[in-house]
Amino acid sequence: DHYILCGYGRTARHVALEFEAEKIPFIVIELQSEQVEAAKQKGYIAIQGDATLDALLIQAKIEQAVCLVSALPSDAENLYTVLSAKTLNPKIRAIARASTEEAVQKLQRAGADAVVSPYITGGRRLAAAALRPQVMDFVDGILTGTDRAFYMEEFLLDPDVCPCVGQPLRDARLRLQTGALVLAIRRADGHLIAGPTGDTILMAGDLLICMGTAEQLRTLNRLLGPIRPSSLRMPKH
Amino acid sequence: DHYILCGYGRTARHVALEFEAEKIPFIVIELQSEQVEAAKQKGYIAIQGDATLDALLIQAKIEQAVCLVSALPSDAENLYTVLSAKTLNPKIRAIARASTEEAVQKLQRAGADAVVSPYITGGRRLAAAALRPQVMDFVDGILTGTDRAFYMEEFLLDPDVCPCVGQPLRDARLRLQTGALVLAIRRADGHLIAGPTGDTILMAGDLLICMGTAEQLRTLNRLLGPIRPSSLRMPKH
Ligand SMILES: [Ca+2]
Ligand SMILES: [Ca+2]
Repeated sequence: DHYILCGYGRTARHVALEFEAEKIPFIVIELQSEQVEAAKQKGYIAIQGDATLDALLIQAKIEQAVCLVSALPSDAENLYTVLSAKTLNPKIRAIARASTEEAVQKLQRAGADAVVSPYITGGRRLAAAALRPQVMDFVDGILTGTDRAFYMEEFLLDPDVCPCVGQPLRDARLRLQTGALVLAIRRADGHLIAGPTGDTILMAGDLLICMGTAEQLRTLNRLLGPIRPSSLRMPKH
Repeated sequence: DHYILCGYGRTARHVALEFEAEKIPFIVIELQSEQVEAAKQKGYIAIQGDATLDALLIQAKIEQAVCLVSALPSDAENLYTVLSAKTLNPKIRAIARASTEEAVQKLQRAGADAVVSPYITGGRRLAAAALRPQVMDFVDGILTGTDRAFYMEEFLLDPDVCPCVGQPLRDARLRLQTGALVLAIRRADGHLIAGPTGDTILMAGDLLICMGTAEQLRTLNRLLGPIRPSSLRMPKH
């Protein structure tokens, strides 16, 4: 149930910091020895080698990994790594960085579950800082960073363990019992209900997008039932 | 009340797309003639020249501008432009892109109101895609993009026009009357209340961070009073 981080360049270092903050077990694969040293000095597990090679992915136990993040220097390397990863472990979640818009589409076609482009992300982030600075500060503050007071987290409603399935949100009394806020519900068919009301019925397979303190979200997690640990990581601090 | 976008490179183009989607009036300043042509072909107002020069900023009517986004190729150019902009119009909101972490700090010291680093932003975005994909899809979907159904918006409570100041959130009945959800309240002193309850008192100078459809947010805007147009742009479509 670990994560694999391919590359340890400037972008990848920030990925590692986020993983570290949330106590996610992860293995770094990096070609350059100085970068491998830098990762080890941070206390991370790091393997030196070319992440596009099956041998390295196998060494990083890709078959047991839940997620791979490819942040290698070139789009070609990221594409190759995503294809290798999906071949060795079809169930792995593969995320890649793309430096051009062409590469975004190619990586998606290659099976990447999510692709992040620094130009698109950076451009949108700049626009958001210009247009609604407080909203962005708020969102940044609850999505990432080690000194957060509030978190956004997702919870999958499993009908086998969740006592709330079939109830209207009002009767589930999640807010009253936990203090956490249900921001949205993503139905199993993909339909999104933003700002669900008390009348909204909780259904099997719903994904609840919630906001609260670490303690509120832990309480909510207990209330919604013992969800498989692989499908949920809670704020640890 | 216009915006100035310095540079029309890969990142800046995405800023322009966001501005266009929200019908924000803006002027592009770009050195290279092909890029200027590209901006004009999109229907944007574009001036050819060096944005680090006062003459160009004055030509772009910096004295009347509310915000400048500097997305020039180098950190040095962005720093210089932010300093020039703040000198010509101390009230302008200046946002810059920085390619290194050193530059982030230097730009902040130079007076930038917000600095966006593609490595930090990209790294966090990759980590978030790995750790809570649904939350990120949700947040991306309400923050940016032209085909949004839901928006996040910020509202400043002006005691001169807002009838709700002094009331508990429950009595203001914002949710009931508008359907929009108050996600958080940022007090004038900077204190953040995420997920305010019915007991939370609305105070002068509060900034309400809200989520809803364009129509819900328009209704909320009317309810909170005729806020100065310069402090609020509403979803236009
Ligand atoms: Ca990297
Ligand atoms: Ca640019």
